[in-house]
Amino acid sequence: MEKEFSLIGKRVPRVDSLSRVTGDVQFAADLKLPRMLAGKIKRSPLAHARILHIDTSRAERLKGVKAVVTGQDTAGVKWGVFRYTQDMDFLPRDKVRYFGEEIAAVAAVDEETALEALDLIDVDLEELPAVYDPIEAMASEGPWIHENYPNNVNVHVNIDVGDIEKGFSESSLIREDTFTAAEDDYFMGEPYAVVARFDDDGNLEIWMPNAGPHMKSKPLSNALQMPLHKVKVRKIAIGGAFGGRSEISPADYICALLARKSGRPVRIVYTREENTVNVRMGHALITTIKTGVDREGKVLARDITCYMDGGAYSSTGPIATSVPFLCMEQAYRMDNVRYNGYRIFTNKPIRGMIRMHGRSFACGIDLQLDMLAEELGIDPVTMRLRNARQAGEYTPTGSYVSSCGLTECIEKAALKSGWREKYGKLPPWRGIGIGINSVQTGFPLGIRGGSQAIIKFNEDGGVTLISGVVDNGQGNDNMLVQVVAEELGLSMDEVTLITADTEVTPNDPGSYSMVTTFAGGNAARLAAVDARNKLFAIAAKALEANPRDLMLKDKKIFVAGSPDRFIPLKKAVRMGLIQGSPVSGEGHYAPKVDHTREWVKNPQGQLSEAFSFGATIAEVEVDPETGMVKALEVTAAQDCGFALNPMLVEGQFEGSVAMGGQGGMLTEYHSWDGGRCLNPTQLEYKVPLACDMPRINNIIVESLDPAGPYGAKEAGMSIAMSAAQAYAAAISNAIGVTLTDFPMTPEKILKAIEEKHQEQR
Amino acid sequence: MEKEFSLIGKRVPRVDSLSRVTGDVQFAADLKLPRMLAGKIKRSPLAHARILHIDTSRAERLKGVKAVVTGQDTAGVKWGVFRYTQDMDFLPRDKVRYFGEEIAAVAAVDEETALEALDLIDVDLEELPAVYDPIEAMASEGPWIHENYPNNVNVHVNIDVGDIEKGFSESSLIREDTFTAAEDDYFMGEPYAVVARFDDDGNLEIWMPNAGPHMKSKPLSNALQMPLHKVKVRKIAIGGAFGGRSEISPADYICALLARKSGRPVRIVYTREENTVNVRMGHALITTIKTGVDREGKVLARDITCYMDGGAYSSTGPIATSVPFLCMEQAYRMDNVRYNGYRIFTNKPIRGMIRMHGRSFACGIDLQLDMLAEELGIDPVTMRLRNARQAGEYTPTGSYVSSCGLTECIEKAALKSGWREKYGKLPPWRGIGIGINSVQTGFPLGIRGGSQAIIKFNEDGGVTLISGVVDNGQGNDNMLVQVVAEELGLSMDEVTLITADTEVTPNDPGSYSMVTTFAGGNAARLAAVDARNKLFAIAAKALEANPRDLMLKDKKIFVAGSPDRFIPLKKAVRMGLIQGSPVSGEGHYAPKVDHTREWVKNPQGQLSEAFSFGATIAEVEVDPETGMVKALEVTAAQDCGFALNPMLVEGQFEGSVAMGGQGGMLTEYHSWDGGRCLNPTQLEYKVPLACDMPRINNIIVESLDPAGPYGAKEAGMSIAMSAAQAYAAAISNAIGVTLTDFPMTPEKILKAIEEKHQEQR
Repeated sequence: MEKEFSLIGKRVPRVDSLSRVTGDVQFAADLKLPRMLAGKIKRSPLAHARILHIDTSRAERLKGVKAVVTGQDTAGVKWGVFRYTQDMDFLPRDKVRYFGEEIAAVAAVDEETALEALDLIDVDLEELPAVYDPIEAMASEGPWIHENYPNNVNVHVNIDVGDIEKGFSESSLIREDTFTAAEDDYFMGEPYAVVARFDDDGNLEIWMPNAGPHMKSKPLSNALQMPLHKVKVRKIAIGGAFGGRSEISPADYICALLARKSGRPVRIVYTREENTVNVRMGHALITTIKTGVDREGKVLARDITCYMDGGAYSSTGPIATSVPFLCMEQAYRMDNVRYNGYRIFTNKPIRGMIRMHGRSFACGIDLQLDMLAEELGIDPVTMRLRNARQAGEYTPTGSYVSSCGLTECIEKAALKSGWREKYGKLPPWRGIGIGINSVQTGFPLGIRGGSQAIIKFNEDGGVTLISGVVDNGQGNDNMLVQVVAEELGLSMDEVTLITADTEVTPNDPGSYSMVTTFAGGNAARLAAVDARNKLFAIAAKALEANPRDLMLKDKKIFVAGSPDRFIPLKKAVRMGLIQGSPVSGEGHYAPKVDHTREWVKNPQGQLSEAFSFGATIAEVEVDPETGMVKALEVTAAQDCGFALNPMLVEGQFEGSVAMGGQGGMLTEYHSWDGGRCLNPTQLEYKVPLACDMPRINNIIVESLDPAGPYGAKEAGMSIAMSAAQAYAAAISNAIGVTLTDFPMTPEKILKAIEEKHQEQR
Repeated sequence: MEKEFSLIGKRVPRVDSLSRVTGDVQFAADLKLPRMLAGKIKRSPLAHARILHIDTSRAERLKGVKAVVTGQDTAGVKWGVFRYTQDMDFLPRDKVRYFGEEIAAVAAVDEETALEALDLIDVDLEELPAVYDPIEAMASEGPWIHENYPNNVNVHVNIDVGDIEKGFSESSLIREDTFTAAEDDYFMGEPYAVVARFDDDGNLEIWMPNAGPHMKSKPLSNALQMPLHKVKVRKIAIGGAFGGRSEISPADYICALLARKSGRPVRIVYTREENTVNVRMGHALITTIKTGVDREGKVLARDITCYMDGGAYSSTGPIATSVPFLCMEQAYRMDNVRYNGYRIFTNKPIRGMIRMHGRSFACGIDLQLDMLAEELGIDPVTMRLRNARQAGEYTPTGSYVSSCGLTECIEKAALKSGWREKYGKLPPWRGIGIGINSVQTGFPLGIRGGSQAIIKFNEDGGVTLISGVVDNGQGNDNMLVQVVAEELGLSMDEVTLITADTEVTPNDPGSYSMVTTFAGGNAARLAAVDARNKLFAIAAKALEANPRDLMLKDKKIFVAGSPDRFIPLKKAVRMGLIQGSPVSGEGHYAPKVDHTREWVKNPQGQLSEAFSFGATIAEVEVDPETGMVKALEVTAAQDCGFALNPMLVEGQFEGSVAMGGQGGMLTEYHSWDGGRCLNPTQLEYKVPLACDMPRINNIIVESLDPAGPYGAKEAGMSIAMSAAQAYAAAISNAIGVTLTDFPMTPEKILKAIEEKHQEQR
């Protein structure tokens, strides 16, 4: 870029580092309010059952118990992300649909008493037949898990572009493969916690880890039958979200209900098991992909059918059903493509939004492409370059791609990883693989798509920024500060942030769908520009200059070209105050997209205003005796538009390799006994540690998106996706067998080696 | 007014009534923070002394003591309201100047330990000669209380307008009288309390009853040597201010210092004695007034000399020295006038801003006018009508009076009270008297003169208002809500307030100098109008109408004259969000005045943009045996421009009669033993109770000031002033002697009756 920045594009330490390192930062579970009670939730011991009767009288009589609630205490308002998916009770009255579902709750003077009271609640359940497999669930002739969803099909997304029959008929090579994957999990560092308090005027204050305060307040107000403005979702530190802190939680509602009934503040802190089972997880997938290519490896037709295990409720089902396809169609050119995505209800915990929606879907696409490439004798990197999306093109469903550095990502990753020297030339049991992907920079839905920011100058020349943006840990707070300080010529510690509070901060989509830097960053930048213009109007008079000739840097407003003709920023601020024209600014930005809430079911037109692209190459070594995989080196290249803070972008890349590749493809999955999760805790669910990680090469590609703030787009997620694909490809390359069931655990690898060995004999 | 209002001008119950009535409201002393310590202050046992040595080692060793601070822990930054009056240490190092001044402080795990530790601090003081009388202090040849103020004269304000010698020479009657008055006190319901907490990033959060958060944060940041944006003064309920919660308190600084040193939150709660002695009080006054009038009673010349006992430090000395004169010159026409006001240092507690600055000064003016009237055979009401200020005139120091209903106030009060039937015709020991006065509607100083407000619409169609305005108990919060709800066609509970927090709210003068409705109300109104214009722009498109033809009422935006062509307000708000144009608004208002910080020492030009005027008539009965006064009926008429909420305005009138008349002229004063206040508690300082109050007739006069919001100006204070005058006049009328020493206690009344009796014999 031509313009010289002071802070933007620099490796600036995060503004919130100190409090995180010292432990001063407060999470919801750290909150202590006077007279606060401990809340605990009684959960279903069955995966599917009718609730016949709940007797709370023994629990209520226990000393120290201040409130007991059941479905009878609710207004019966059902929750759903979309108007047409409102199928979940926060506290069901009639039926439970998964093991661990909420049945009742207690608030007591301490946790021990609350737990004791839970045991005193007598629940009379009538067990119903349960189904745990999506294919079986579809075959069921009823009774269905939700009466109004025949064959337990929750969502069906059908996309049909071009003429796939023609495409297949023109193909010189066609493959059809099926890929399966278990559930993946977020495993946030912080188990869910919520604190609720009512004041005498009937206002509810509520704190919880949440990726979108404004997305929480509305359903809470509906369910509690309170005016929205009386529900005040407050800012509190968040220990990781990954998609799992976006949707409202039954715990939020139950906590508020207990606070209202007891007349005292209530805190609910989830156990690790509850955080696993009752928060959401990623969908388990069965994906059949049929792809036809020409002799050069160009994809001529693709037909995909995907079955997703959605668990017991809709949650974000429509999004989860379309997004895996959308990521794929963004990354790969295709004229003829058909997609049938089915989300199926089962009696398992609810699956929802997760970073890397359909990771295994993408892995299938790439693994199959490698198999096609091998049959055609084409190098996988060349295969991808021939099919890679280019800027200026439209996706099959009609999104214009304004910027795209995918080819550059592939080429740079190949160069840095030594692909040409390594592919096909590595020693035995070593493998190298590539994955590419693309992610939306926000797919805003309805009224909460845009972000707004307000700036006020304080009398000392510093500013306060009021923004709805939320920071889940990725550094959004820092991003806001960096942008505002840059535009106003301030140092970062002169920017005070007020964020993520529904009472004081304006609209924002939340830290959801990778939109924050794009919408929230643009809004903050525009607010700063607005304030700067007001400063310039004041300074222009004092300097007898044209406001358009003024510049602002290092706390001085000066005439461009005449750095000696200046007034200090602080002086201009004070002049504004004395003249009765206080300096403030407002900015707002809403991504330019076509869709509405109906869009997710039938994608057409502009999905996102910008798209990020990533290519990851992984090199691994497999121990043929144990099936253990050691990742040696991972090269992650992403077009994030422009790196506002390369240090944070690289942090995203590295976390993405850990989550998507190292954890997602090697060790992380849930195992089940019917509807019961067998590995809900850290002991059994294996999240990679720092010592597990390979060497990572970070490559930032900057395509400068025309609409992004300073050209910035989403950063990190297309690495999380493509890292999974690269690991899968590298392992398959190392053992000479393409595994089709994810993640690729030692057992599966050993079994594949064994089978191959037997075949060869 | 032509326009029909929904809420403005209506008797609307206050938005904060419920929490006040139920006790849910939190004052600073109610705040409990985890690990909070109790702070206590060691105070000087001498009225004037040099600090030789302070040994804190014994206190520090006491178990439970977490921090001890003395002047040695401070940066030595001196405090003064003005740059030229910075003469006070929050914790002195060298010298103490009044009995009770801060010497050291302790933070300990509980109050008992803190008190015990205070006794273990060894203070070595060298007593200095002290002076307690302003006249003696002026006569002193040194050493002076402050070395740089010769003869202990702190402030001298000299105003000389016209030609008083000529005026006197043309007068047909001249009187010269001297009036004296003891200190008056605020006696807030809530003793001062402050809570301070530092976070790990070095930010200070601080809560205290304060009339102007932005006026507190700056001196705190100076004294603590911290950037302003790290000092966050938070909102907390306030139990009365009356001028005594405007200035920064040493307790604020000491509490922050203890919190910093101990690393824990600290709370200091004043005893009632501390709240009396260490908060400020009103000045004691000695006023000599020489007035010349013509045969019709028109004042031709006035020469006034006033000595004010300022106590040990400057505080708001320059304001206190000029304001009594300014109130007088606003109410009464005068061509030729001279004023010499002296504020004198003594070794007594500090006197500062107080509602009714110079109440006794005004009483002198009015009592003397009555004596002149009597000599001329003119009725006191007629006397006042002949000298009363009229709209369109300039005051002697040059303020244009844009609106003035004083004549109407006098006439209506006279009519309602039955003046013509009663004056001179009442039975023995009954009396009736009138006082008139005028008050500024704000005299904004420097950068904190203007107010700014920001409005954001929430998705449910309600709004959040962000404003720096503070509510001391008079109903400012309600005023803001009423104004915003009116302009946006909302009900009051749809307006959420964020106020009085230096981090989030923009500039505001504070609830000081009667400016809040004028500046803060105008700013809120303009912000609402700005937001409404944005709503109209959105609605105009939808309605295919001109935005200028639109109206907003009862949550509907409709085309004027076609009430059926409308869209619901909420829909327009949601359309804005969907279109990426969220509806918000900004408004600011700074009263148009001439002066700067130097102004108070040399008043010239426009002092305030608007002035309120009041006339009070009191009827009393004196018991000649005991000297006790019983107020029978008080008629209070004030021109407040426009009564935004008549219920609150009348509440102000009634409180004003209690404070100014019943308490201020009958029972409230401090008595002294040298520098030691003898009546610091409720037991000895007699504040009137509800059962003491007379029947009050409230008369609201509305002159519709062109600049005030809806025409509104200050409400209440010119009743507080004129009630004192009316009581004084009524008592003098009842006993046939004009008392010249205030307040008029039974002893003084009995003595006057006795002396008159002896004279007559």
